[in-house]
Amino acid sequence: MGLIVQKFGGTSVANTERLQNVARIITETYRQGNQVVAVLSAQGDTTDDLIEKAREVNPRASKREMDMLLSTGEQISCALCAMAIEALGFPVVSLTGWQAGFQTNSNYSSAKIKTVHTERIQAELDRNHSIVIVTGFQGLNKYDDITTLGRGGSDTSAVALAAALKADLCQIYTDVEGVYTADPRHVKGARKLEEITFDEMLELASQGAQVLHNRSVELAKKYRVNLEVLSSFANKPGTKVKEVVKRMEKTQISGVAKDKNVARLALVGVEDKPGIAYRVFSLLGKEDINVDIILQSIGRDDTKDISFTVKRDDAEKAADLLNEYKESIGFDHIDVDKEVVKVSIVGAGMVDDAGVAAKMFGALYDADVNIQMISTSEIKVSVLLDENDANAAVQAIHDKFFGE
Amino acid sequence: MGLIVQKFGGTSVANTERLQNVARIITETYRQGNQVVAVLSAQGDTTDDLIEKAREVNPRASKREMDMLLSTGEQISCALCAMAIEALGFPVVSLTGWQAGFQTNSNYSSAKIKTVHTERIQAELDRNHSIVIVTGFQGLNKYDDITTLGRGGSDTSAVALAAALKADLCQIYTDVEGVYTADPRHVKGARKLEEITFDEMLELASQGAQVLHNRSVELAKKYRVNLEVLSSFANKPGTKVKEVVKRMEKTQISGVAKDKNVARLALVGVEDKPGIAYRVFSLLGKEDINVDIILQSIGRDDTKDISFTVKRDDAEKAADLLNEYKESIGFDHIDVDKEVVKVSIVGAGMVDDAGVAAKMFGALYDADVNIQMISTSEIKVSVLLDENDANAAVQAIHDKFFGE
Repeated sequence: MGLIVQKFGGTSVANTERLQNVARIITETYRQGNQVVAVLSAQGDTTDDLIEKAREVNPRASKREMDMLLSTGEQISCALCAMAIEALGFPVVSLTGWQAGFQTNSNYSSAKIKTVHTERIQAELDRNHSIVIVTGFQGLNKYDDITTLGRGGSDTSAVALAAALKADLCQIYTDVEGVYTADPRHVKGARKLEEITFDEMLELASQGAQVLHNRSVELAKKYRVNLEVLSSFANKPGTKVKEVVKRMEKTQISGVAKDKNVARLALVGVEDKPGIAYRVFSLLGKEDINVDIILQSIGRDDTKDISFTVKRDDAEKAADLLNEYKESIGFDHIDVDKEVVKVSIVGAGMVDDAGVAAKMFGALYDADVNIQMISTSEIKVSVLLDENDANAAVQAIHDKFFGE
Repeated sequence: MGLIVQKFGGTSVANTERLQNVARIITETYRQGNQVVAVLSAQGDTTDDLIEKAREVNPRASKREMDMLLSTGEQISCALCAMAIEALGFPVVSLTGWQAGFQTNSNYSSAKIKTVHTERIQAELDRNHSIVIVTGFQGLNKYDDITTLGRGGSDTSAVALAAALKADLCQIYTDVEGVYTADPRHVKGARKLEEITFDEMLELASQGAQVLHNRSVELAKKYRVNLEVLSSFANKPGTKVKEVVKRMEKTQISGVAKDKNVARLALVGVEDKPGIAYRVFSLLGKEDINVDIILQSIGRDDTKDISFTVKRDDAEKAADLLNEYKESIGFDHIDVDKEVVKVSIVGAGMVDDAGVAAKMFGALYDADVNIQMISTSEIKVSVLLDENDANAAVQAIHDKFFGE
């Protein structure tokens, strides 16, 4: 018994049948004596359909009007979900982002939540004993204009709301049953984790395990919101995401992740003088191009190479930008390789165990996979590989750490 | 040069091409030096599609949630229209009903506008020199919940806004070119009127000339808002609707209207005692069944008949209701005739000209059309006819009054 925030993604509410299923999950939680606030995404492809409509009218529409348009998607799914709950005979009210008190900054299309004024929701919960359905992904800025949080923002809405309401639990319902040691669709023997730490989840999320949006995990960590990732299609416990995890058995890592949205750029023949790296990466930073792994070769003769990875969609833009400044930076040419993939292992215990990275490299050696770049942090090791080696590499690493 | 409110209905914004056409009309008005506020309906069948979705989920959904759902329709069309205007290079902002300051009562699905707080719109017009696009059909009640005004509410939104902003003109763009002396699709020689009075428009609107929503005309009359009805598809002047009209030539009537949404009920063999009519019509009133023409026969022996018309959709409900109270009212049986039609002539000058009604009846006699019931007011004469006679009757009356 407590206050539970539940979040349902687009696939979970994609059609009438699924909405009715979500209504059952919500009302079952309510029936057990809990107060329930559910945060919903737009149904299935609604957001994409709206974007397509906008593109037809004006491919360069302002973000302010895009947000005005896109915010209707969640409003529709929330109203329909409330109706499905009414049909089951429970008290319910749906609220838009602004009705639910989501105050954001004015960065249209990727706004940040500043605060959540929970008075309305509290009143609905306490006075009306209602189930409250809230639109994810959106809020209101100081000009009283509608903003959206960007893709994946509904997870963040749910966690922010759980934090503001001091909820006992924030359940993220999705189309997978939890967080796995590797992608169960591609890796044999992948196992669902009972628990995982915020830090591990952060690394897994940013390494391409698309279960939870990274912003939401950061927020959950900051406000110590107990998260649970579980499936709206299977009536089973999912994976708990917490500050500290008690592991029954000592596992060195909690998962293997693969990120295909990556490209490697190499500046070849860079003059060996100070300040070049600064020039290159501040240029990219100004254009909002995030750089991940950076590797600088030891200089041969009087030149060296600088390699780095960016998101695959940013590769052309980054190359064009740097070529524009070729003279002033001073390099021979740029190599762009989009047929690469990043594979990472993540584990909070890794920092105490020097052998983990070596064990990973050993698995790759045994599988005859060549490593192009390496990057490490306290709780993860990432390697850049040829795309064709990706599946074999993940399977080999997973077998090494999780095999019987 | 002035402040012009323009309203565009669902067919005018049904697709990308039409939205772009509407954007051209709005920006042309702005380019001529006017401040422009445009009120839009939802695109084409959007509202019906949303209603269908709701019905699938819950056929008895609450009106509160229906309004939450349906209000997205105008938000979508307004955002898209703003994008189309951006594409033409003009400053523009779209506003929802609540952003535009529409305060309504809490009668979900058929809310009444209480006031319009125009500060935001005025600021957008005066400070930002923006074209303002506003969602029709919706507002906010005192609980901060979204309400809708019911079908045809966008006309009312536009007129209320024109009144609140003290606009110089309120143009209602629709798919017909103005108000005609009769339905131009069915009546040969039907002519577009240059001008018409509010009262005449009211009678024509309620008599089935579906050009303007009646509530909007009443509101325009009350606040003396200059209206113009015109087509978004033809670049021509429409019909002006005003308090007083100067007629170049003296026409006795301004139009002939036909209303097929009507049924005649007859209580046969009613006991000839006081209070029966009161019983019957208060029963119907309690169930929100509007009665239009009433005719009570002179009693033969000790019984009489009471005939009256209701909307065709209400006929069964009315008959069932009265049959339930058959004993206490005291009648023999009920006759229901749904194959009737009401034909009306409307004209502000009629009251001064006793011959108008006679001229109408003469036209019907010449056309061999039998009159079932007659009802008159200061500015109209309505007759109830067999449905099969409707077109011939309207043509005959129109020829009589407007023929060369």
